[in-house]
Amino acid sequence: MKHYNKLSEHYKKIANFEHLASVAGWDQAVMMPAGGNESRAKAMAELSVHIHQLSTSEHLGELFADAQSENISAIESASLREMKASWQKATVLPARLVEAQSLAGSKCGHAWRTQRGENDWQGFSKNFAEVVLLSQEEASIRADAANKTPYDAMLDLYEPGTTSEQLDSIFGNLKTWLPDLTQKVQLRQSGQQFIKPTENYSTKQQNALGLDIMKLLEFDFNHGRLDISAHPFCGGTSQDVRITTRYDETDFIQSMMGIVHETGHARYEQGLPKSLKGLPVGEARSMGIHESQSLFFEMQLGRSKEFIDQLVPLVLKHFPDNNPAVFEADNLQKIYTRVNPGLIRVDADEVTYPAHIMLRYEIERDLMNGNINYTDIPELWDLKMQQYLGISTAGNYKNGCMQDIHWTDGAFGYFPSYTLGAMYAAQFMTAMKKQVDVNTCLSEQNLKPIFNWLNKNIWSKASLLTTDQLVKQATGETLNPALYGKHLQQRYLS
Amino acid sequence: MKHYNKLSEHYKKIANFEHLASVAGWDQAVMMPAGGNESRAKAMAELSVHIHQLSTSEHLGELFADAQSENISAIESASLREMKASWQKATVLPARLVEAQSLAGSKCGHAWRTQRGENDWQGFSKNFAEVVLLSQEEASIRADAANKTPYDAMLDLYEPGTTSEQLDSIFGNLKTWLPDLTQKVQLRQSGQQFIKPTENYSTKQQNALGLDIMKLLEFDFNHGRLDISAHPFCGGTSQDVRITTRYDETDFIQSMMGIVHETGHARYEQGLPKSLKGLPVGEARSMGIHESQSLFFEMQLGRSKEFIDQLVPLVLKHFPDNNPAVFEADNLQKIYTRVNPGLIRVDADEVTYPAHIMLRYEIERDLMNGNINYTDIPELWDLKMQQYLGISTAGNYKNGCMQDIHWTDGAFGYFPSYTLGAMYAAQFMTAMKKQVDVNTCLSEQNLKPIFNWLNKNIWSKASLLTTDQLVKQATGETLNPALYGKHLQQRYLS
Repeated sequence: MKHYNKLSEHYKKIANFEHLASVAGWDQAVMMPAGGNESRAKAMAELSVHIHQLSTSEHLGELFADAQSENISAIESASLREMKASWQKATVLPARLVEAQSLAGSKCGHAWRTQRGENDWQGFSKNFAEVVLLSQEEASIRADAANKTPYDAMLDLYEPGTTSEQLDSIFGNLKTWLPDLTQKVQLRQSGQQFIKPTENYSTKQQNALGLDIMKLLEFDFNHGRLDISAHPFCGGTSQDVRITTRYDETDFIQSMMGIVHETGHARYEQGLPKSLKGLPVGEARSMGIHESQSLFFEMQLGRSKEFIDQLVPLVLKHFPDNNPAVFEADNLQKIYTRVNPGLIRVDADEVTYPAHIMLRYEIERDLMNGNINYTDIPELWDLKMQQYLGISTAGNYKNGCMQDIHWTDGAFGYFPSYTLGAMYAAQFMTAMKKQVDVNTCLSEQNLKPIFNWLNKNIWSKASLLTTDQLVKQATGETLNPALYGKHLQQRYLS
Repeated sequence: MKHYNKLSEHYKKIANFEHLASVAGWDQAVMMPAGGNESRAKAMAELSVHIHQLSTSEHLGELFADAQSENISAIESASLREMKASWQKATVLPARLVEAQSLAGSKCGHAWRTQRGENDWQGFSKNFAEVVLLSQEEASIRADAANKTPYDAMLDLYEPGTTSEQLDSIFGNLKTWLPDLTQKVQLRQSGQQFIKPTENYSTKQQNALGLDIMKLLEFDFNHGRLDISAHPFCGGTSQDVRITTRYDETDFIQSMMGIVHETGHARYEQGLPKSLKGLPVGEARSMGIHESQSLFFEMQLGRSKEFIDQLVPLVLKHFPDNNPAVFEADNLQKIYTRVNPGLIRVDADEVTYPAHIMLRYEIERDLMNGNINYTDIPELWDLKMQQYLGISTAGNYKNGCMQDIHWTDGAFGYFPSYTLGAMYAAQFMTAMKKQVDVNTCLSEQNLKPIFNWLNKNIWSKASLLTTDQLVKQATGETLNPALYGKHLQQRYLS
C-alpha cells in the first residue's frame, strides 16, 4: 500500500473518534441532565487523549516523509499538506495538557450555564482561572514551535495564516470609519417608525417556522436536525449536522434569523465533498470561512429586502393569531436593519457587531500574550464597551464578559473569525453578483443558482486550497475589507 | 501501585469508552436522522474495536495473576472476579469479528426500522443472514472456550450461570400449568365489562403524565431523562439514564405502563453504588436481574390495585377533557389484568407473556446450536404461535418474527431474561412482603420502604454477588419458579 493510503486510513480512524466527540458534545449541550456532566466530562477527556495519541502516533513522522516522495495526485498532495498541518498542531502538545484542558473546559462550560444567569463572576472565575492558565500554556508551546507570538499561534488554529498584525490593520481601519458610519445610520433611522413584536410567539410555532425556513434554504433533513440549546451552535458531523437555537416566547426576531445563520454553517458542512470524508482536507477550510457562510446566509441574504419578502408568507402562516402588521415586509426589514448599540454580541446589528469583536480580540490577544491577567477582564470589558459602543457593563458580568461560551472552553483566537467571516461574506456576494442575478433569484424564490455558486466556489473545495487561494479563486482577489465597508454603506446609507 | 489498582484504572478507562458507546447508541435510536447512519455505524464499529482492544490488552493476563496473590479486601476480590470474567469473555473473540458484528448489527437494526413497517422479510433477511452468521461464529468460539453448547455460551452473556437445561426445565414446567391457567382466567374474564380508551390522547399529554409517574416512582431527573424511540429501551449510563417510550395517540395504556417498566430499569441503574462506578463489579448483576426490576415495577407494583389507585388522579389531571369513566380504578385494573393472547410480545398481558419467550427461546437456541437455519424462522414462528397461543402469523412478519429489535443486533440469548426476571420479581415481592407492608405503603403513597428494600437487597449490591447469591441473600433461596405461579394464581384466580 502507498504510504499516502496508510496515512489516509489513519486519519479516517481519527475522524471516527472525532465523530464520537461531536455526538457526545452535542448531547452535553442539548440533551444531558446536569447530573450527567461529571462522567461525561471524564469520558470526553479520555476520548480527547485518545484522539491526541492517534494524532501524534510515532510512525506518522516517517509516513509523512515517505509519502512526500510518492507519485501522488494534486488532491492527494493537498490532503497530505492538511494531514501534516494537523499532525504538527497535535504533536507539539503533551497529552497531559490535552486531558487537563478537556476536563477544565467541560467543568467551566458546564458551570457557566448556571453561573451566567446568576451573574456569578466570582464562582465562574474559579474555573476560568484554570482554563486561562492551560490555554496560556498551550499558546506558549505553540508559539515556540511556530516562532510566532502566543496569540498568533492560537489564531492559527481557527484561521490559519492570519496574524495580529493583519487584524490590527483591519480593525485599525474599521475604527477610522465605523463609528462615523454608525452615527450617520442612527441619525438617519432616528425618526423611523416600526412595530415591535410584543405578543406571545410560542416555542412550538417558532420551531415550526424555523423548520420551514430551513426548508426554504434547502437544509437536508436526512442529514441533520434542529434543536434547542442555551447557546446556539452548529455541531454534529457533515453527514448529520446538528444546529440549535433558543426561543424567547415574547420575540421571534432573534431565533428566526439565528436559524438562518446556523443553516448557513450547516449547508457548508452538508456541501463538503463526500469523496474526501474523514480526511483533514475534506473539512471546512477555517472558522473564518465557516462564519462567512453563516453570515452570507444571515446578513447578505437574510437581511436583504428580497429575502425578507420571502419570509413574510411563512411568518404569517405560523402566527395566524398574532398582529399581522408586525410581519409586513417593510416592518421586518426595519427591525432587521435597525442599528442600536447593545450589550450582547449575538443580538447585535450588522453595523455594531464588529465593535464586539474588536473588544474581544484585544482582550484575548493581551491575555494570551501575558500582558493582562484574567482578573482584569471585567474592567477592560467595561472600558472598551464604553469606548466602542458607549455602554457601561460595570457589575454586569452576565451581559458583559460572561455572555459567550467560547472562552469557557479555551477557544481563544476564535472571535476574529466572525469579522473576517462578515468581510469574506461581503466579498463573496460582490463576486457572486457578477455571475448571478441574486435579487431576481430571491424574488422568484429560485435559490438554486445562489447555492450552486457557493457550492462550486466554497463548499466543494473543502480544505483543498488555502484560505487565500480559495478567496482569490472565488473572487479574483484575497481579503478586501473595503467591500465590507461598501456593503454597509450601500445597505444603510444609500 | 497494587496490581489490583492498575486493573481498576484500566477498567475505568474502558468504562469511559463504553460511556461514549452508550451516548452514540442512544442518539442513533432516538435522535439521529436516517442519513447519519452510515458514518455513525462506522464510528461505533471503530469504538467497539477499540474497547475490544482495551479489554484484551496483553498485559492484563499478568496483572490478573499478580493481583490474585495480593492482600485485597472482599469487595476488591469480587471486583477482580468480575474484571476477570469480562476479560475472559472479551479475549476469546477476534477483533475482526467484533468489528464485523458491530457493522452488521448497525446496518440490520437501522434498516429494520423501516423494513418492519413494510413487512419486508425478504429485504430484512439479507442483512439478518450476516448477523446470524456472525453470531453463530461468536457462539461457536465461546462454546469451545467455555466447554458449553453454543447457545449456553451466549446465555452466559446475559444471565451468567444459566443453562438451557435449567430453562428447558423451567419452561417445561410452565407448559404443564400455564395453558390451563390461561384458559381459566379467560373464562373467568369472559363476562367482564370494561370501557376501552377510544378517544384521542395527545403525545404531549401522555408525555406529561409519564413524567409525573416517573416522579411518583422517584426517578432522579438530575441523572436521566425520558424520550421517544421506535422500540422502548433503557440506555445511557448510571449517571445519566435514558429511558424511552413510544406514544399511540389513540391509546395511553401501553405507554403509561411502558414508562413504569423502563423506570424500574432506570431506578436499578441510578441505585448502583457510586463507589464502584466504572468497574465491572459496579454494574447491574445480569439481564435477568435487570428485567426483575423493570417487571417488579410494571407487574408486581404497577398492576396491583393499590398502585392503580395512585395512578387515577394523575390520569384525570392530564386528560381533563377525556371520558373519565375510562380512568376509574376498577376499569384501569380490568384493562391492565385483561388476559388475551396476542401477536406482540411487548403488548402481551402478564399471563401469556411467557409463551412469547418460550417461542423465542426455542428458536434462538436451535439457531445458535446450528439445528435450524434463519430461513426457517417464519415457519417455526407461525407453528409455535399456533401451538402456544392459538394464533397464526403466516405472512405477517411485521407482527411475527420481525417485531423485536434484539436479534437484529445479534443479541441471541437475551429473551429468557424476561421470564427469569418475571420469576425473580415475584420472588422478591414475596420476600419483601415479609418485611414491608407493601399494600399500605402504596395506598398511603409512601413508596420509600419499597425502594429502600430494593436498594438494600438489589441495587446497592451491583455485581458484588453472583445471581444465585444475590437472590438467596434477598429471599432466602435461589430461583423458585413456583412463586411466580402462586403470584399469577393469586392475582388472576383468587
